[in-house]
Amino acid sequence: MNILLASTSTLFGGKYLEYLKDELIDLYTGIDEILFIPFARPSGISHEDYTAIAKSFFAAININVKGLNEFDDKINAVNNAKAYFTGGGNTFLLVKTLHEENLMQVLKENIKNGKPYLGCSAGANIGGLNMKTTNDMPIVYPPSFDCLALIPFNINPHYLDPNPDLKHNGESRETRIIEFLTQNDITVIGLREGNWIRRKGNEIKVEGAVQTRIFKKGTAPYEIEVGTHLK
Amino acid sequence: MNILLASTSTLFGGKYLEYLKDELIDLYTGIDEILFIPFARPSGISHEDYTAIAKSFFAAININVKGLNEFDDKINAVNNAKAYFTGGGNTFLLVKTLHEENLMQVLKENIKNGKPYLGCSAGANIGGLNMKTTNDMPIVYPPSFDCLALIPFNINPHYLDPNPDLKHNGESRETRIIEFLTQNDITVIGLREGNWIRRKGNEIKVEGAVQTRIFKKGTAPYEIEVGTHLK
Repeated sequence: MNILLASTSTLFGGKYLEYLKDELIDLYTGIDEILFIPFARPSGISHEDYTAIAKSFFAAININVKGLNEFDDKINAVNNAKAYFTGGGNTFLLVKTLHEENLMQVLKENIKNGKPYLGCSAGANIGGLNMKTTNDMPIVYPPSFDCLALIPFNINPHYLDPNPDLKHNGESRETRIIEFLTQNDITVIGLREGNWIRRKGNEIKVEGAVQTRIFKKGTAPYEIEVGTHLK
Repeated sequence: MNILLASTSTLFGGKYLEYLKDELIDLYTGIDEILFIPFARPSGISHEDYTAIAKSFFAAININVKGLNEFDDKINAVNNAKAYFTGGGNTFLLVKTLHEENLMQVLKENIKNGKPYLGCSAGANIGGLNMKTTNDMPIVYPPSFDCLALIPFNINPHYLDPNPDLKHNGESRETRIIEFLTQNDITVIGLREGNWIRRKGNEIKVEGAVQTRIFKKGTAPYEIEVGTHLK
């Protein structure tokens, strides 16, 4: 496999995908066209407008982008594509659409056979075993929470440390993940913004700018450094 | 109907349910025992431990508390109860358990027939039409997102304004609710901590300490004052 799962598409104050540019040139070596999966629709943006944003970034590194929404036969489009990119937005909407269009399994098979995959935020979330550690609001009801399982873990993108100054009693991210572990025995990668997971073949590493927080059932959460192998 | 749906059980720096004490004496007038629904399990606490917390508060206002978990025949326990309280925690776990135990409908009928109901946080969320505006993590997969529909709206508890100082690109609460409205035509009550919805008969009001933010499809979000009737 050759995949990159990023916490976010855009760093605070940065431009879309800019901080990942060198990594994406490496990920998509030899590829001149990728298939964009726009179903997560951040802020409700249309599939067409969302694809145009991706197209604009990738033009600068000489890669053409087609939106999966442009194809009548979407299963065929996934099978014929050379590489993929799933953008962020609402994970429930993304997962519902992929299941309803029977695309989850076919996408998974193509990626497991070696086609490059980039996922940001919701698009990274679906690289995990299931979507049960998303931060998103359940605005639609998907037929299943199962995802691509490109890594044997779950991801919590945009991982955020508790803010001791916040005078608010909503649960912290850590509390939510600990609640997840009372119901599931799956390792969760708390992926802070600026970090990503890079899988090449069987090697899985965390890369980026800061430490990554790991949550396992029966163990206190702990931090790992950039470059650490995940097992 | 005679219901109170509160954004939170506990104000920052306050004690459990303390800020609602006078309201609860009014809600439960003439009631000496309530049935506590502990299924949301905040931080994974056991049903028994959670019931003990509720019991301890209500002892001070001379109301006994029984946990729904104590009953083998839970449908019968709901039908025999005089009043209800559903505590906060994880809404997915709460809704999954209520549906799986066939309790959602029976609880709804009893409350619609006039038995007092208190819900805090997740327990308030289920008073709405469905749970699609919860903030919680989807740690389990419920058979449906439908809820009690005690009011003709959805609730977003712990409503939080965007923080302009936060250097983080996760979606704001407002963005999430606007995404919800692209997929659903249901009014959402953004209920800040310190506020609650009070329904007596057909009269539904927001009460509490601060303004409440209202989200409707096709309209800019707006604020309403304490005491405003909801229609």
